[in-house]
Amino acid sequence: MAGFNHLFIPGPTNMPEQVRMAMNVSMQDMRAPDFPDFTKPLFEKVRRVFKNTTGRVFLYPSSGTGAWEAAIQNTLSPGDKVLMSRFGQFSHLWVDMAQRLGLDVEVFDCEWGEGVPVEKYAERLKADTSHEIKAVFATHNETATGVSSDIKGVRAALDAANHPALLMVDGVSSIGSIEFDQDAWGVDCAVSGSQKGFMLPAGLGILSVSKWALEAHKHAEFPRTFFSFDDMIATNDQGYFPYTPATQLLKGLDVSCDMIHKEGLENIWARHHRLASGVRAAVDAWGLKLCAKETKWHSDTVSAILVPEGFDARDVISTGYSKYNTSFGTGLSKVMGRVFRIGHLGWLNEGMVSTALSVAEMSMIDVGMNIKAGSGVGAAIEHFTSTQAKSGKAIAAE
Amino acid sequence: MAGFNHLFIPGPTNMPEQVRMAMNVSMQDMRAPDFPDFTKPLFEKVRRVFKNTTGRVFLYPSSGTGAWEAAIQNTLSPGDKVLMSRFGQFSHLWVDMAQRLGLDVEVFDCEWGEGVPVEKYAERLKADTSHEIKAVFATHNETATGVSSDIKGVRAALDAANHPALLMVDGVSSIGSIEFDQDAWGVDCAVSGSQKGFMLPAGLGILSVSKWALEAHKHAEFPRTFFSFDDMIATNDQGYFPYTPATQLLKGLDVSCDMIHKEGLENIWARHHRLASGVRAAVDAWGLKLCAKETKWHSDTVSAILVPEGFDARDVISTGYSKYNTSFGTGLSKVMGRVFRIGHLGWLNEGMVSTALSVAEMSMIDVGMNIKAGSGVGAAIEHFTSTQAKSGKAIAAE
Amino acid sequence: MAGFNHLFIPGPTNMPEQVRMAMNVSMQDMRAPDFPDFTKPLFEKVRRVFKNTTGRVFLYPSSGTGAWEAAIQNTLSPGDKVLMSRFGQFSHLWVDMAQRLGLDVEVFDCEWGEGVPVEKYAERLKADTSHEIKAVFATHNETATGVSSDIKGVRAALDAANHPALLMVDGVSSIGSIEFDQDAWGVDCAVSGSQKGFMLPAGLGILSVSKWALEAHKHAEFPRTFFSFDDMIATNDQGYFPYTPATQLLKGLDVSCDMIHKEGLENIWARHHRLASGVRAAVDAWGLKLCAKETKWHSDTVSAILVPEGFDARDVISTGYSKYNTSFGTGLSKVMGRVFRIGHLGWLNEGMVSTALSVAEMSMIDVGMNIKAGSGVGAAIEHFTSTQAKSGKAIAAE
Amino acid sequence: MAGFNHLFIPGPTNMPEQVRMAMNVSMQDMRAPDFPDFTKPLFEKVRRVFKNTTGRVFLYPSSGTGAWEAAIQNTLSPGDKVLMSRFGQFSHLWVDMAQRLGLDVEVFDCEWGEGVPVEKYAERLKADTSHEIKAVFATHNETATGVSSDIKGVRAALDAANHPALLMVDGVSSIGSIEFDQDAWGVDCAVSGSQKGFMLPAGLGILSVSKWALEAHKHAEFPRTFFSFDDMIATNDQGYFPYTPATQLLKGLDVSCDMIHKEGLENIWARHHRLASGVRAAVDAWGLKLCAKETKWHSDTVSAILVPEGFDARDVISTGYSKYNTSFGTGLSKVMGRVFRIGHLGWLNEGMVSTALSVAEMSMIDVGMNIKAGSGVGAAIEHFTSTQAKSGKAIAAE
Repeated sequence: MAGFNHLFIPGPTNMPEQVRMAMNVSMQDMRAPDFPDFTKPLFEKVRRVFKNTTGRVFLYPSSGTGAWEAAIQNTLSPGDKVLMSRFGQFSHLWVDMAQRLGLDVEVFDCEWGEGVPVEKYAERLKADTSHEIKAVFATHNETATGVSSDIKGVRAALDAANHPALLMVDGVSSIGSIEFDQDAWGVDCAVSGSQKGFMLPAGLGILSVSKWALEAHKHAEFPRTFFSFDDMIATNDQGYFPYTPATQLLKGLDVSCDMIHKEGLENIWARHHRLASGVRAAVDAWGLKLCAKETKWHSDTVSAILVPEGFDARDVISTGYSKYNTSFGTGLSKVMGRVFRIGHLGWLNEGMVSTALSVAEMSMIDVGMNIKAGSGVGAAIEHFTSTQAKSGKAIAAE
Repeated sequence: MAGFNHLFIPGPTNMPEQVRMAMNVSMQDMRAPDFPDFTKPLFEKVRRVFKNTTGRVFLYPSSGTGAWEAAIQNTLSPGDKVLMSRFGQFSHLWVDMAQRLGLDVEVFDCEWGEGVPVEKYAERLKADTSHEIKAVFATHNETATGVSSDIKGVRAALDAANHPALLMVDGVSSIGSIEFDQDAWGVDCAVSGSQKGFMLPAGLGILSVSKWALEAHKHAEFPRTFFSFDDMIATNDQGYFPYTPATQLLKGLDVSCDMIHKEGLENIWARHHRLASGVRAAVDAWGLKLCAKETKWHSDTVSAILVPEGFDARDVISTGYSKYNTSFGTGLSKVMGRVFRIGHLGWLNEGMVSTALSVAEMSMIDVGMNIKAGSGVGAAIEHFTSTQAKSGKAIAAE
Repeated sequence: MAGFNHLFIPGPTNMPEQVRMAMNVSMQDMRAPDFPDFTKPLFEKVRRVFKNTTGRVFLYPSSGTGAWEAAIQNTLSPGDKVLMSRFGQFSHLWVDMAQRLGLDVEVFDCEWGEGVPVEKYAERLKADTSHEIKAVFATHNETATGVSSDIKGVRAALDAANHPALLMVDGVSSIGSIEFDQDAWGVDCAVSGSQKGFMLPAGLGILSVSKWALEAHKHAEFPRTFFSFDDMIATNDQGYFPYTPATQLLKGLDVSCDMIHKEGLENIWARHHRLASGVRAAVDAWGLKLCAKETKWHSDTVSAILVPEGFDARDVISTGYSKYNTSFGTGLSKVMGRVFRIGHLGWLNEGMVSTALSVAEMSMIDVGMNIKAGSGVGAAIEHFTSTQAKSGKAIAAE
Repeated sequence: MAGFNHLFIPGPTNMPEQVRMAMNVSMQDMRAPDFPDFTKPLFEKVRRVFKNTTGRVFLYPSSGTGAWEAAIQNTLSPGDKVLMSRFGQFSHLWVDMAQRLGLDVEVFDCEWGEGVPVEKYAERLKADTSHEIKAVFATHNETATGVSSDIKGVRAALDAANHPALLMVDGVSSIGSIEFDQDAWGVDCAVSGSQKGFMLPAGLGILSVSKWALEAHKHAEFPRTFFSFDDMIATNDQGYFPYTPATQLLKGLDVSCDMIHKEGLENIWARHHRLASGVRAAVDAWGLKLCAKETKWHSDTVSAILVPEGFDARDVISTGYSKYNTSFGTGLSKVMGRVFRIGHLGWLNEGMVSTALSVAEMSMIDVGMNIKAGSGVGAAIEHFTSTQAKSGKAIAAE
C-alpha cells in the first residue's frame, strides 16, 4: 500500500531518525575495554529521565512486562501483602502477575476509565498500623483506557500514614512523555520500556529504583537470576552486564536520551500536553467521549475514544489500517469494540497529530458515523494556532 | 524539533521504507562477474516505467539537469534550430541551457500558469516545410507552477505536419506519477531524475530514448564524453558502465521499480489523481487559486497555490518549516512570494495529504490569512471519503 | 581507529548485510491484522533450525540466559532433582542459576577443557531407578573453553536407563552452526539466543521445546509470568505475543532463518568444520594448544587457545583490540589470562578466518611470543586450498 | 555465499560505519533555510582535504569522469593546446576525453608501468616560449597500473619554464589517501570522486580549483551548463545548488571529511604507506613483480601485480570472487590478464590487508601458481610487527 504507514498506537511509538541511524550498526564486542566508556554515562542519562538522583537503573533485554517482574522479584518475597488497583488491561495484568508470582494482593477494583483510587489507598494505609502491606502499586498511565493517575497523591497517602511500604509505579506509557519525578514522588520502583517515551523499538525493560528499593532487595526472597539486581549491580558497576546486552538498542537509547535531555523534560511534557489537548478538542468536536471519566484522568499520551452505540470501534481501526495505512490502538478486553485509541506520545508534532485525526475522521465517516469532515482536525488546528507552541525551533535553539 | 519532518516539496519526494532499506548497503564491485545479473534486468524495469519498448534508457550519476544536457548533446548539433516554450522556472532553465549550448532556440513565451502552446507548435511545424526545426521541446510537468501539458497533443502536431523533428520531453516531475507513454506519444528523449516518481534520493539522471533518438545520435555533433550515449551503450550492453556507477542508488532504483510495477502504473496515476483532487478541493475551500490557469493544466503531482494580495507566500513556507517541521516548495523566480507549492507525488497516501493540508492551514492562519481551521483538510477528507479509492490493500492484493 | 572492526568473539557474531538491512525499519504495529502473516511462518522457520518437528519455539525478548531460566521455570518445580555438569564458565553459570532457582542440583565437576561426562551420566541415570532425577542438563558447546559435547550420547544414556528425565541442552553457541538435531536426539529444551548462529544482535532468547517438555509444563510449579509458556502459547497461536515483542529483531530473524535454510543446515555445519579446522591448523603451526583437552571435544564454533607460560593472554587480546581493531574473546574466570578465544561461528568465510589468524599472529608477536610470522595463517591457507570447500557459489547456486 | 564480501578493488573502497549510518536518512529539503548551515562548512571541510586555501571546490552529482570533464569545460576552450601523458587506462581515458572534446592534445606515450615523464614535460614547456600550451595534465595515481607520479615535479617544470599553463591533476585515487598539496604544488584543477579516499559510495565528482583556474574560467569558451562553474558559484555562495544535489551523499561526505580531519591527513598518508609496504613485502615474498616499473612509482593506494607467464590473472580474480567472496581489481585494456590489482586505500587497517593477501594467496594457489602458503601474508605481518604503527588508538586519542 502506497505511502508511509502512520503509527498511532500507544507504543511502539515513532522512532526519531537519529535513533534509527544510531541503531544501524554492525555487531559489537560487549566485553571491549572501552565498552564502559559508553555504558556508564548511559546509565546516568537514563536515570535523569526518571529524575532519579539517588538510586540506579537496570536495563534488561526484555520488555515492560519483564521490568514489572524484575521489580517484584527483587524487592518482595512470596506471600507479601501488597495493595493494587485495577481499572484497565495493563493494571489488570500487573495484578495478575503479582498473584501468579505468589503475592498476597489486595485489589481495589475501579471502573475502567477511572484511575488509582488515591483516597481509598490513603484510608487503607492509615488502617494498616502494623505495616502488613509491603508495597503499594500504581499504574501511572493506564494505556488501555487513556487514564493518568496521581502518583504524587499516592506518595502523600503513604506519607500521611507514615507507612514504610514501597511505592511501585508502572510508568511504561508515561515516563519520558508526561510529568514524572521519581525523587520528589518517592517512587521506589519505576517501570518503563524502550518503545514508548524512550522512542526505541521494543526490547528493553527499563527499571529505575530508589535506594530504599535497593535496601529492600537485600531481604527479598523470590528466586531469580535473569532479572537479579545483584548480578546486574556487580557487572554494571564495571560498565558491563551479566549476560550479553542488547547493545544495538543501547546505542539507540544513548541517542534518544540525548535527544530527551536536549529538548528538556519539561518541554517534552508541555509538548505532550499541547498535542493531547488538540486531540481532545477533536474528540469534543466530533461529539464523542473519552473512556477516561474525568478531566483529571485525561492522559496526555493516549486517548481512548468511545464510539457511539451501534458502532464497533474495531471497524474504525480496520478501516484505518486497510484503507489508510494507519494503525490505531484497539480496545482491549472489557472495552473491545467500544473504543479506539490514538497514541500521541513520543516523537510527535502537530502535523502528525493532524494525520491521526484526519485518518480517524475518514475511517469514522467510512464506517457510517455521523462525523462532519474536517470538524475534529479543524478543532485541533484551531487549538494549535490559538495557543503558544513551545515545540518549535525555539526550543531546539535554547 | 520534535516529530518527523514532513516533506511536501515536489522532489525529492518521500522514500519508501523498502527503498531506504535497499540502499543501506556496503560498497560493491561494479566490475564483478555477476553485476550484469543485476543491471540488465534493471534497465528493463526502468524502461517499462517510461513505456518505452523499442529504445533504451541511460542511467547517469547526475540529475535531471544532467539528463537534459545528455539529451541535447547526444541527439543534436551546435546551431540546430529547435522549438521550445517557456512558462515557468524549469521550462525557462531548459531554454537557457539550449541557448548556452549553442542551439538556435525559437521560444514561445507563455504566461506562467499556462502550459505548452500546442496550437502554436502545430502552426509553426506546419509552416516549417523545409524541416529546419530539428527538435521540439516540451516540459510535461512544469514543477514551478504546477502545470501539466499535453504531450500527446505535441506529438499530434508533429504528425499532422508530417514533421521529422525529435520530440524532447522533460518528464522529471511527471514520469512514474502521472500518465506518460513514450511509445504511444512518440517521445524521443524523455528526461527524468531519481528523486521524483522514482522515489529515490537525488543523484541519478534518467534518460529514456527512442530508436529514432538513437538514430539521430549518429549525426549529433556536440562534443561529449561523460554523457555520451556511445560509451554507455558499449558498456551497458555488457551490463557495465563506462565509469563507476552510483551502485547504491541503482540498488534503490531496482526496488523502487519493482514497487512501481507491483502497484501498476495505471493505479499509480489514479492514486495521484485522487490525492491531487483532494488538494485542489482544499484550495477551493480555502478560497484560494492555483497558479495553473486552467483546469486542463492542473498538475496531479504539484500544486502551486497563490496567496492573497498582501501576503508573502514565503512567510507561509517559513512558518511551516520553523514551527511545524514541514517543507513546502517555494515560489521560484517570477512567482516568488506569490505561491507556495505542495508536492503531492511519489510515495503518498491520504494521511500524508492530510498532513500537508493541515500544516498549510496552520501556517496560513499563523501568518494572518483568513482561513477557517479545518476547511481545506475537511474538503479533502470529504473528497477522499465520497469517492472510490483504488489505493488500499485491494491493489496490493491484486 | 581506521578500518573495520574485526569481530572474532564467540558472539555476538558478524551480522549478514541482508539481516542488517532487514532491521533498518521504522516501528511497527504488533497488533496489526496482518502481523500473524509474518509471525506464523517465522515460528516454523525457527523451529526448522532446531530440527524440531513436534514441539514449538518461544521467542523471548531477553537473552540466552533468559531462555535458560524460561526452560527451568516452565518445565520443573522448586526442589526437583537435576543432573548437571560443570567444565567452563557457561556450564558453571547454568548450574548456579539452577541452584539459585531452588533446584536440587547434582553436579559433576570436570576439568575445564573437558566436556559432558557422558559415561558418568549414564551410570548415574542407570542407578536412579526410582526416577528421582527430573532433568538432565548438558552444555552442548561450552563457549568459555571451546568444548563441544556429545548430546546424542546423553540421549543414549537416558534411553539405556529407560529414564524419563527431561533433556535440557544449552545450544546457545552451537545451534545454527554445528550439528544439532532436536528430534533425533530427543532434546526437550534447547536453549539459544539471537546473537550466535542466528547472526543477529543480542536481544532474543530462543527456546525450542519438545512435546514432552510441553507435557511436563503442565505440572511445573515455578512461579512465572514473563517467561510463561502458557501466555506465549495462547497468543503465539494467534500470531501475536503476550507483550510487545522485539519486532525489529524478529524482522532480522526472519531473514537470517531464510539465509540459514537457503545455505542448508548441513552445508553450514560443513562450512563451520572446514573453517574451524583451518583455525586448529594455525594453532598447531604456532606450537600452541587448545584448552579443549581432546580432539573429540574440539568445538567448530570457538577455539580457546592457551598461551605459553609466562604470557598473559589478556595482553594478546588488548593488543588485538587497541592496535589492530580486532576483538577476540577473553578467558573467563578460571582460565582468565591463560586463554584467548577466537570465535569462528556464524556469518564467516575463509577470508575472515585469515583476518582473525593474521591479527592473532601480529598480536602474539607484539607481546613477545615466539611465533613465526605467517606460520598460522599459512597453515590455514594450506588447509583451505588443499581441501574441498563447500562454501562457494556452488552452494548458493544449488 | 557465506561471510562478508571482501572489497579490495581500488574504489569504491570500504565505507566506514559512521559514513554508512550518516547516509541512512530520509529525504530532505535542499532549499530549506537551514540547508546552508550544513553545506557551507562542508565546502570548507572538503577544501581542506585538498589543502586548497585560496580557491574553491565543486561537488557534482556525477563521478570522477564528470569532474574531469568539468575541469576541461570550465577552464579551457575548444582547440586549446594541452600537454598530456598516457601510461595506463585512466590516463588514456583522460587523453581520449580531451581529444573528443576538441582540445589539441600533445601526448607523451609512456610504457604502462611508468609515470608522468616529468623531464620531458620540463623540456617541452621550456621550448614553448610562446605559451601555446594552455594546460598540462598529470595523472597523480594511475589506478590501472598502480603508479604514482611526481606532481610536485610537474609544478617545478612549469615554474622552471616560467610557464603560465594550468596544471590539471587527476587525483581520483590519490587525494585523501596519499600526499597531495594543492596549494604548495600549484595544482589548478584537482579532480576526485566520492568513492576512493573520501570513502563514500560513487556518485559525486569532486573538483577543487585554484584561484587561477577561476580566473581562466572567465575566458573558457566550451559550452556547458550541468558542469558550469558559474551556476555552481552563484548558488553555492548562498549555500545552495543550481539543481537538486545528491544530499544523501553530501551527508556522508560531511562525516567522512570529519573522520579524515580527525585522523589527520599526514597520519592517513603514513597509514597508507605502512599498509602498502605490507602489500609490497608480500609481493616480494611471492616472488612476483609489480606493474609499476620503479620504486619511485610504487603507489600507496593500489598495487597491480603481474602474474607469471602461463597464467591468466583473470583466473586469480574470478577464483577470489567465486570461491572466497573477494573482489580484486582486474587488469584493464593492455594489461588485461597480466595483472590483478589489490586496492589498499581508504578505510583500511592491517587486518584488512591480511585478508586481501590471504585470499590472494589462496586464489593463486588454487589456480596452480607456485606460491608458498603464508609466505606473502607472513611477510606483511613481519612488516607490520617490526615497524611502528601510527594507526592505533594513539592517533584516535591525539
